[in-house]
Amino acid sequence: MTIKVELGTTLLARNDELAAEIQYLCEKNKIFLVNIMSSPGAGKTTLLEKTLPKLKERLRVAIIEGDIATTRDADRISAQGVTAVQLNTNGGCHLDARMIYQSMEKLNLAQLDLIIVENIGNLVCPAEFNLGEDLRIVLLSTTEGNDKIVKYPLMFREAQILVVNKTDLLPYTDFDLKELEQDALAINPALQLHYVSARQSQGIDAFAGQLADYALKKAYRRWH
Amino acid sequence: MTIKVELGTTLLARNDELAAEIQYLCEKNKIFLVNIMSSPGAGKTTLLEKTLPKLKERLRVAIIEGDIATTRDADRISAQGVTAVQLNTNGGCHLDARMIYQSMEKLNLAQLDLIIVENIGNLVCPAEFNLGEDLRIVLLSTTEGNDKIVKYPLMFREAQILVVNKTDLLPYTDFDLKELEQDALAINPALQLHYVSARQSQGIDAFAGQLADYALKKAYRRWH
Repeated sequence: MTIKVELGTTLLARNDELAAEIQYLCEKNKIFLVNIMSSPGAGKTTLLEKTLPKLKERLRVAIIEGDIATTRDADRISAQGVTAVQLNTNGGCHLDARMIYQSMEKLNLAQLDLIIVENIGNLVCPAEFNLGEDLRIVLLSTTEGNDKIVKYPLMFREAQILVVNKTDLLPYTDFDLKELEQDALAINPALQLHYVSARQSQGIDAFAGQLADYALKKAYRRWH
Repeated sequence: MTIKVELGTTLLARNDELAAEIQYLCEKNKIFLVNIMSSPGAGKTTLLEKTLPKLKERLRVAIIEGDIATTRDADRISAQGVTAVQLNTNGGCHLDARMIYQSMEKLNLAQLDLIIVENIGNLVCPAEFNLGEDLRIVLLSTTEGNDKIVKYPLMFREAQILVVNKTDLLPYTDFDLKELEQDALAINPALQLHYVSARQSQGIDAFAGQLADYALKKAYRRWH
């Protein structure tokens, strides 16, 4: 048991070292790094598909697509005319800093303002791994139920933005928006909430606007 | 690195040893052990709530409720008049054989025909841990998208039954039932499919009937 705990510590410490390297690279190039996480099927890729056209108007963007086995999501992102690095974990349940560092080596960092990492669909393990990101976004779809906040607390505690997706399906679910807000803010009082229907392109402008503002604020520091 | 791999192997080998102990206990008591897995919010607990009244007519049932942090699901199951053992993983992303063995020690096994384990909401990690179960069920909700089969293949390859839930929301999604069936049977030709809307109690009779038949078949061996 002792050996296991120590190894775990070493593993996370090594991850934090690499995360610091990523932060250094992003600071040097004034790149804003975003980590998007959610359950499988909450709509991360659809949200990106709808958000990228808005982001592209103001920023130079690349996507790092985490996937267990396929290139489906990266193909959907490439179809938007945005560079997508495909990262296959071959069964692995989360992305770690080493994977992100290796993906960034394949990108021309001097030509980028924003990198968005789409993590593996999983509400548990990805929350434990620091990727050196500037911003953590968690996506929750209304069809998953509002009890997910209290059932998977770490993910919602570690995020700065919560995007509630599939609001178009609200009338057909028992999802309780009031309870969600109460539970989310009790766990994480600084959490910012967005309500969107990615499929129906609702709420996208406000979300994309906030993301672009954050990234531009960092990019401006190149000249000031 | 070598140490890490060896430890992983030891960990899974130890898990398999305990899974064999569970199989022995279940065989001795002629208990049918079921492991239900899915993404967060796919509807495992709601499916159980609707299925339990049917199962109780024919069998003596107990539930082992895996949860990261709360007792919410166990409370919902207890409300059905069924014994529920609450198993909190304190952040852990899956259930392992040790946890199931310890939970079974709290149950009166001589008075049971069926134990259903509700695993942690996660399509990745739970698939890797053998619990000594007789049957693996994976639940997929239509709002998650039919691409989950190819994106999380291990889970669907290791299951014997796939329950497609939230069929009442099909008209509001892009879910493609034909593609789902093709992909599922390509990965796992023996997979049995059920279509249900747990919330609207559709398809529950057929699902509960099959589960009860399996469990009774094992229970009958007590006397024959």
